[in-house]
Amino acid sequence: MRMALVGGGGAGFIGKVHATAATMDNDAVLVAGAFSSRPEKSKASADLFRVDPSRAYGSWRELLDVESRLPEDERVHFVSVATPNFTHCEIACEAMKAGFHVVCDKPMTISLDDADRMVETAEHTGRVFALTHNYSGYPLMRQAKAMIAAGELGDIIAVRATYVQGWMHGMEPDQQQDRGAWKSDPDKNGRAGSLGDVGTHAFHLASYITGLEPEKLMSQMSSYSGHHELDDYGHAMIQFSQGATGCITWSQVTHGRLNDLSIEVDGTKAALTWRQEEPNQLCVKALGQPTRVYERDPGAAYLSAAATDVCRIPGGHPEAFLEAFANVYRNAYEDMRTVNAGGTLDRRASVYPSVYEGRAGVRFMSRCLDSAEADSRWQSW
Amino acid sequence: MRMALVGGGGAGFIGKVHATAATMDNDAVLVAGAFSSRPEKSKASADLFRVDPSRAYGSWRELLDVESRLPEDERVHFVSVATPNFTHCEIACEAMKAGFHVVCDKPMTISLDDADRMVETAEHTGRVFALTHNYSGYPLMRQAKAMIAAGELGDIIAVRATYVQGWMHGMEPDQQQDRGAWKSDPDKNGRAGSLGDVGTHAFHLASYITGLEPEKLMSQMSSYSGHHELDDYGHAMIQFSQGATGCITWSQVTHGRLNDLSIEVDGTKAALTWRQEEPNQLCVKALGQPTRVYERDPGAAYLSAAATDVCRIPGGHPEAFLEAFANVYRNAYEDMRTVNAGGTLDRRASVYPSVYEGRAGVRFMSRCLDSAEADSRWQSW
Amino acid sequence: MRMALVGGGGAGFIGKVHATAATMDNDAVLVAGAFSSRPEKSKASADLFRVDPSRAYGSWRELLDVESRLPEDERVHFVSVATPNFTHCEIACEAMKAGFHVVCDKPMTISLDDADRMVETAEHTGRVFALTHNYSGYPLMRQAKAMIAAGELGDIIAVRATYVQGWMHGMEPDQQQDRGAWKSDPDKNGRAGSLGDVGTHAFHLASYITGLEPEKLMSQMSSYSGHHELDDYGHAMIQFSQGATGCITWSQVTHGRLNDLSIEVDGTKAALTWRQEEPNQLCVKALGQPTRVYERDPGAAYLSAAATDVCRIPGGHPEAFLEAFANVYRNAYEDMRTVNAGGTLDRRASVYPSVYEGRAGVRFMSRCLDSAEADSRWQSW
Amino acid sequence: MRMALVGGGGAGFIGKVHATAATMDNDAVLVAGAFSSRPEKSKASADLFRVDPSRAYGSWRELLDVESRLPEDERVHFVSVATPNFTHCEIACEAMKAGFHVVCDKPMTISLDDADRMVETAEHTGRVFALTHNYSGYPLMRQAKAMIAAGELGDIIAVRATYVQGWMHGMEPDQQQDRGAWKSDPDKNGRAGSLGDVGTHAFHLASYITGLEPEKLMSQMSSYSGHHELDDYGHAMIQFSQGATGCITWSQVTHGRLNDLSIEVDGTKAALTWRQEEPNQLCVKALGQPTRVYERDPGAAYLSAAATDVCRIPGGHPEAFLEAFANVYRNAYEDMRTVNAGGTLDRRASVYPSVYEGRAGVRFMSRCLDSAEADSRWQSW
Repeated sequence: MRMALVGGGGAGFIGKVHATAATMDNDAVLVAGAFSSRPEKSKASADLFRVDPSRAYGSWRELLDVESRLPEDERVHFVSVATPNFTHCEIACEAMKAGFHVVCDKPMTISLDDADRMVETAEHTGRVFALTHNYSGYPLMRQAKAMIAAGELGDIIAVRATYVQGWMHGMEPDQQQDRGAWKSDPDKNGRAGSLGDVGTHAFHLASYITGLEPEKLMSQMSSYSGHHELDDYGHAMIQFSQGATGCITWSQVTHGRLNDLSIEVDGTKAALTWRQEEPNQLCVKALGQPTRVYERDPGAAYLSAAATDVCRIPGGHPEAFLEAFANVYRNAYEDMRTVNAGGTLDRRASVYPSVYEGRAGVRFMSRCLDSAEADSRWQSW
Repeated sequence: MRMALVGGGGAGFIGKVHATAATMDNDAVLVAGAFSSRPEKSKASADLFRVDPSRAYGSWRELLDVESRLPEDERVHFVSVATPNFTHCEIACEAMKAGFHVVCDKPMTISLDDADRMVETAEHTGRVFALTHNYSGYPLMRQAKAMIAAGELGDIIAVRATYVQGWMHGMEPDQQQDRGAWKSDPDKNGRAGSLGDVGTHAFHLASYITGLEPEKLMSQMSSYSGHHELDDYGHAMIQFSQGATGCITWSQVTHGRLNDLSIEVDGTKAALTWRQEEPNQLCVKALGQPTRVYERDPGAAYLSAAATDVCRIPGGHPEAFLEAFANVYRNAYEDMRTVNAGGTLDRRASVYPSVYEGRAGVRFMSRCLDSAEADSRWQSW
Repeated sequence: MRMALVGGGGAGFIGKVHATAATMDNDAVLVAGAFSSRPEKSKASADLFRVDPSRAYGSWRELLDVESRLPEDERVHFVSVATPNFTHCEIACEAMKAGFHVVCDKPMTISLDDADRMVETAEHTGRVFALTHNYSGYPLMRQAKAMIAAGELGDIIAVRATYVQGWMHGMEPDQQQDRGAWKSDPDKNGRAGSLGDVGTHAFHLASYITGLEPEKLMSQMSSYSGHHELDDYGHAMIQFSQGATGCITWSQVTHGRLNDLSIEVDGTKAALTWRQEEPNQLCVKALGQPTRVYERDPGAAYLSAAATDVCRIPGGHPEAFLEAFANVYRNAYEDMRTVNAGGTLDRRASVYPSVYEGRAGVRFMSRCLDSAEADSRWQSW
Repeated sequence: MRMALVGGGGAGFIGKVHATAATMDNDAVLVAGAFSSRPEKSKASADLFRVDPSRAYGSWRELLDVESRLPEDERVHFVSVATPNFTHCEIACEAMKAGFHVVCDKPMTISLDDADRMVETAEHTGRVFALTHNYSGYPLMRQAKAMIAAGELGDIIAVRATYVQGWMHGMEPDQQQDRGAWKSDPDKNGRAGSLGDVGTHAFHLASYITGLEPEKLMSQMSSYSGHHELDDYGHAMIQFSQGATGCITWSQVTHGRLNDLSIEVDGTKAALTWRQEEPNQLCVKALGQPTRVYERDPGAAYLSAAATDVCRIPGGHPEAFLEAFANVYRNAYEDMRTVNAGGTLDRRASVYPSVYEGRAGVRFMSRCLDSAEADSRWQSW
């Protein structure tokens, strides 16, 4: 596959992550980019990304325009969008309309209207749309999803997902963030702070592995760091349609925590726990039995194919963040190939986060914000 | 000290825990008991507790009556109450009125009126009243409390305390609990299920180490096990007066969890985490620094005296539940000796949980139940 | 049971550990002691141990003499020996000859001749002799022993036991140890340094749970701390009669380690690992299966009775060092009662370490020292 | 850089690992290969490795011959050797003589004579030679090396490195290994079994981070799996010139262990521990201080540049095996560029394992085997 990257030229690391993950299996080549909204900076980034300068475009519009007119065996197959959240919608929609598949960073966008527009555009154009809720790419999260789908945990009664970081304590009161200054700007990023940055990951992971859908939720959130008005700490309590209880916790002001996403799922037959910073183990517990620790291991017969299919190397040779991120790409490529070959895309069954999961994430943010502004009252989903 | 035990003759383990913990330092002797509400069973338990049969009383009233008339150098100094929660108030109050100090199991009682009565009785009689929120007896929880009091974490912005167990899954739908059948009986135990059993422990620990006081709270709770109407799973979100956010989670339906109480405190300078099942380590984290793991170690100069004073053996020789429980007794004995010697009791400064903490726990239960019944609305503290 | 303690009046903590452990289950009372080799110090310790001053003797000889002439229902049943190693033999033998059972600290003694004499005296007098290799008292070590005996691990092919501490780095070059100055004195303690202090524990645990017997061994040891000539770091490699390989590692110069005893056993069907500082979990691993983590839990049907019999409180309520130590006493009491009631003592089948295990430990030290002095050549067992 | 891969077409995973790691940073492209010793299989693998079929050669000799005659801007810059160990020497030497840099799998070769020849060839040709002792590529192993070099641990007194796996239990007695059947064939692989496969990794890591050089060593090894005559379990004890003690343990018959390489280093000021399966944390311990857990984190000021330079993504976003492997390539590329630009190669100072470390590993195997055959007597280095 030939890849174009929009964004990635700034101080952030996520552009490089996209480039590395997308090409890890030697299944794609990054050949074009609009790496920055400033043309000269975009050009300057070409070398960093080892892209031919002639295909380092001055804007994403130019990229779409020029690439779509290249011969079919030259032009890119898909566009990865790693720009500020408030720009995702327009870029992704235009890219799909121009015939390109899209891989988009999360949260998908910042308003429900935009989210609806993206869903419609994806459906209308028939293009693949993959959202990089990368944590769902970890083999043992695939295993968790498969186990729950197979009923191994019984009925799910509770989910607790917690995503805590602490880097905001490193900012001076009047400091601009090196990466993502737009994140603190409500005009650009919307009303969600850490809720959008990390809370949506936790919500997605909970939804992804359990398949539960909220019926109503309420939220309390706070701003402790003093850098902006947006939330940097919060909880959401969820009542799922199926009867289960959910609690989502997010923070970017928990001192010393790096990227501590963890999830616990309780069922009527068994329960499981997993932690992103130690991603190669999944704990499964049941009353009266020894705790079972599942290892990411492509040779383990006790794992489902959903898990082993996305392992690259043997058990005990740990895989981590980049490999999980690459799995989202790998799975999206499968669908891109299907579509490119004229096949049918079953978007609802996609193993990677699709445009529907993206919309659910935007709704989660929206409902949390509504609740927080309404004295934490329950909001219907 | 001479000890009398009320309760402990049933299938539960807590009576034996009281007896072992109270005498661990060879600082007290169990010499009398009313081990059961059934006289013959109480007598039969005398041997188990190695108490002279003549002092195994048929009822707690008989115990108080006979013991209070014994010569001063024979009669017990204090009464430990390990009976069903709904009986605590009357036993403890009568014991204090009869001149005995009291060590009482938690939750202190099941109604706010009773809690007020216990506070008044303690204040009026001047007797020591210690509540066995035993987890506060762990040396590293004393360390956490001391560090926070000394400002080492800066201002506290958030507390998350979670107490999950899974034993309820072991019960058949129509099964009576071996231990604590009264726990599922609202007529006896009041409206709180797991909230009272484990939720109050989590709330107490959060309050104990941070010193924070709730301004308002709200709660969502559920009953998943099907054994009774009472809650077996729940969350409470707290807004503390000092501005911090709290989240208390409790469960007795999380498969395979044994007694998993953990606590995390976030401050503006550092954060800490601790887990009861690995009680000899406390993690302290601060942005940009290596995680520091504090060990329970009486020889560690980096620990406060509050922690090292309640260690019995050198670091690396782990101490655990019984030793922590014994620390509540040890500290209560210090106050008992002070009072017995005519000294003044500073109940507000007690290092062990006092009658005021007991009342706060009852209020926590009450406010959570009110909120749950009011569609999870905020309740003023 | 009535207990007498010899030793314990010094700066060390082990005397207090014996007193606490022996009485934890309220199954014994400490009523007499010769707490120090200095009579006035022994008397002064009576209060600390809450022993009647009239039974705080000026010497162990006086203790044996006076106690043996007390009426049967007053005199002590057994003597615990917590004195420097080089004194164990004489005290223990005289105590047994005087009719008392003996609980003795480890290593049992410092020479093979003495060890033989202790075996002979125990056999001749028919007294119970228990050695406090306390780590064998942990419920999950009992579980390990039971699993291996039942063949659950298949044939044992390898054992690795490592016991590392670091406290020696806290001593100044010319400093006397607060506790155990005699430990560095070859005239008193024999040739073994850390080998005797911690190495024998590791060797015992390996032997205890596997039942393996050495055929030959070799050792390399060093003295890094500069405080004395004796070893403070070493390895022993063992060839067991049954074909298995052993490696025992000991150190008291590993910076920052507190009391880190761990053991790993490899079998042809499964393998296990355990670590003393986290004693409530035992890991069992087998190729192609999830790791199973066994919890100390008296209610766990997957554990053997050998393990659950020595648990005091439910799973998740951690037990630790003192409780394990108390289990050695508890099991020794069972044999004492059997003997006192005229029954037969099956010393070879004892669940607690007996005089034979004591002799094996002395032989282990002796063979290691011989090998170290012979350029690490193999020594026959 | 343009890369050629020799080997990788078999059932093993290491060829794919080389291809992925070498290109992870988009710093190299795999353009040619001799993927198998069977020409048709080599051709068939071209697609798997996404290499143009015209450059999938039928033999490594053909590869060297044809590639060396291609124009300079087409021909490969380096050859990666991922073939059976006994073939490394000839391939690597011929490749260097043909002007190519070499990245070679470990152990470097199977005899000391061959090792000498490889050293001479590297020195004579001036080509870069990198050995993929990939565990030295982990950022926190770079950190450990830097800390020890800077004296932060004081003088090193002991090193314990253990590498245990259990996969051999999965083989039937008469089964051929899917991957690496040659490994059990003494005619091909020499006398070392697991010693070469994993023992050399442990030895290298110990040498790499401490800089210690053996003075003498002795070894005991066994064959428990019954598949071959070669060792599958062993220990080596090392006396280092600088006075430190080493113990290297290796196994491929420890049930349930996947790839459990761990290392512990004791110094006179501090000690450290690290485990490959949790590679993002390094524990540093010192008496009287809390344990410090260092995180792989490019933003951590407490880490040395040696560590942060080889991080790709922020702390808490775990990196793992492939990234570490890629770091060996990344560092080798730096030297390749230097040489290609006419600069001087300081092979003795290389941060990646060079031909000298390769020779040391072969010597380690040789001395261990000599000792094992001589009743475990010490062998001079």
